[in-house]
Amino acid sequence: MADDPTSEYFAGNDRDRAAFEAGIKLGSIAHQYVGTPLTSASAASLERAIEAATRVQPLVERVRVRIDRKRMRVRGPYRYGVLTEDLLDVEVAVRVGTARAIGALRYVPELDYPLMYLKAIGGPTKD
Amino acid sequence: MADDPTSEYFAGNDRDRAAFEAGIKLGSIAHQYVGTPLTSASAASLERAIEAATRVQPLVERVRVRIDRKRMRVRGPYRYGVLTEDLLDVEVAVRVGTARAIGALRYVPELDYPLMYLKAIGGPTKD
Amino acid sequence: MADDPTSEYFAGNDRDRAAFEAGIKLGSIAHQYVGTPLTSASAASLERAIEAATRVQPLVERVRVRIDRKRMRVRGPYRYGVLTEDLLDVEVAVRVGTARAIGALRYVPELDYPLMYLKAIGGPTKD
Amino acid sequence: MADDPTSEYFAGNDRDRAAFEAGIKLGSIAHQYVGTPLTSASAASLERAIEAATRVQPLVERVRVRIDRKRMRVRGPYRYGVLTEDLLDVEVAVRVGTARAIGALRYVPELDYPLMYLKAIGGPTKD
Repeated sequence: MADDPTSEYFAGNDRDRAAFEAGIKLGSIAHQYVGTPLTSASAASLERAIEAATRVQPLVERVRVRIDRKRMRVRGPYRYGVLTEDLLDVEVAVRVGTARAIGALRYVPELDYPLMYLKAIGGPTKD
Repeated sequence: MADDPTSEYFAGNDRDRAAFEAGIKLGSIAHQYVGTPLTSASAASLERAIEAATRVQPLVERVRVRIDRKRMRVRGPYRYGVLTEDLLDVEVAVRVGTARAIGALRYVPELDYPLMYLKAIGGPTKD
Repeated sequence: MADDPTSEYFAGNDRDRAAFEAGIKLGSIAHQYVGTPLTSASAASLERAIEAATRVQPLVERVRVRIDRKRMRVRGPYRYGVLTEDLLDVEVAVRVGTARAIGALRYVPELDYPLMYLKAIGGPTKD
Repeated sequence: MADDPTSEYFAGNDRDRAAFEAGIKLGSIAHQYVGTPLTSASAASLERAIEAATRVQPLVERVRVRIDRKRMRVRGPYRYGVLTEDLLDVEVAVRVGTARAIGALRYVPELDYPLMYLKAIGGPTKD
């Protein structure tokens, strides 16, 4: 990351930053879009918008967003729901130098909790 | 609105509610999506997602969302911006019985302010 | 509202605008804060912040925000919840000239829906 | 973190997770509250609410939030502004086992960018 002007502000190594950046992206997604009105018909456009907005953020290599139509709760007189963290299934890969982190967000039934976790982290090779 | 189970909760007439619902939609849009990471490349998907999410809300007849690419401010080492209210140009039409309101949000240079206003309101027929 | 420079942009009368502005405030509240991490211990500070942020908005006379501690759902390994629309009980009064609207947001069990409605609307004087 | 039921879902070590969790908290703050209406008078209540909401999240040891009154832009006919990322000065410490990360968010004039960075990361002791 020698050419990245932000590097001088960072403590730690590239791997630390990869983990940190993966966390930023997941925290951002959960708190930007939760509350968005939602039906099965509108879910695909929201998935695409979240992916596009995540790709423009620093160091993102790859992102995939799915909204769980089966868990979606449509209700009330107007028959729609809202996006909740529980409906999100996200995977985002970030790269910092030769280090890479894959962060994930998904509802874990065993925990009754929408967990954000590091699915993989590695490099640089001899760190 | 005789068949709408929410009617009994409302003071006022259909025209009042049309104005109220138009306000809800604009307030919702501004506060749900402001802060979303943004470039020219991602703007179209966000426009579509906002329109789709607005259409699922009560009593919406029509909605159009444009993000002003010219006023968009791309900056920093990673060359992206975020959605601000000033970038939004929104028009939403709601219908309640025979009353209809058209609400708009756009940046007004003379006021230096992203104004939400009633662009049109009318009905019921002899209003 | 002769002295308000935004007046010329508005269709309709002061009563229409009062209803519209009440809607804006409720839509804004719901979509700005839903998703905020929450426990009984943090709820009071969020209520105060929402009230303070609403008071700075145009034409607001009075606002009251309550978060329903009894319906709050604390869960998962870390024992916290998030703000949902269902937890909000809001009342906001706006004044435009001699017209006034009171908007409310509360969960209505009969509808299984967090309803935003006009609780009162009146004026100008001979309404 | 032997007693934390989420541990089994995580790749990497405690230090990786500390960096990841610090990122989550900063991403969450930026995207939850940006757009909130704001004046000098309302800023303190929002600082307190953000701190309280951050403290209820997993593994947070300490958090401090300041909103920059000097950079705040009050404008338009109603003389208020909104929270932007540039106004936020945040420091959050998270602890995972014996590892600890301190994440920060602040506007960096040299970069013209609200940077989220790792201010410190360390442990477990011989990592």
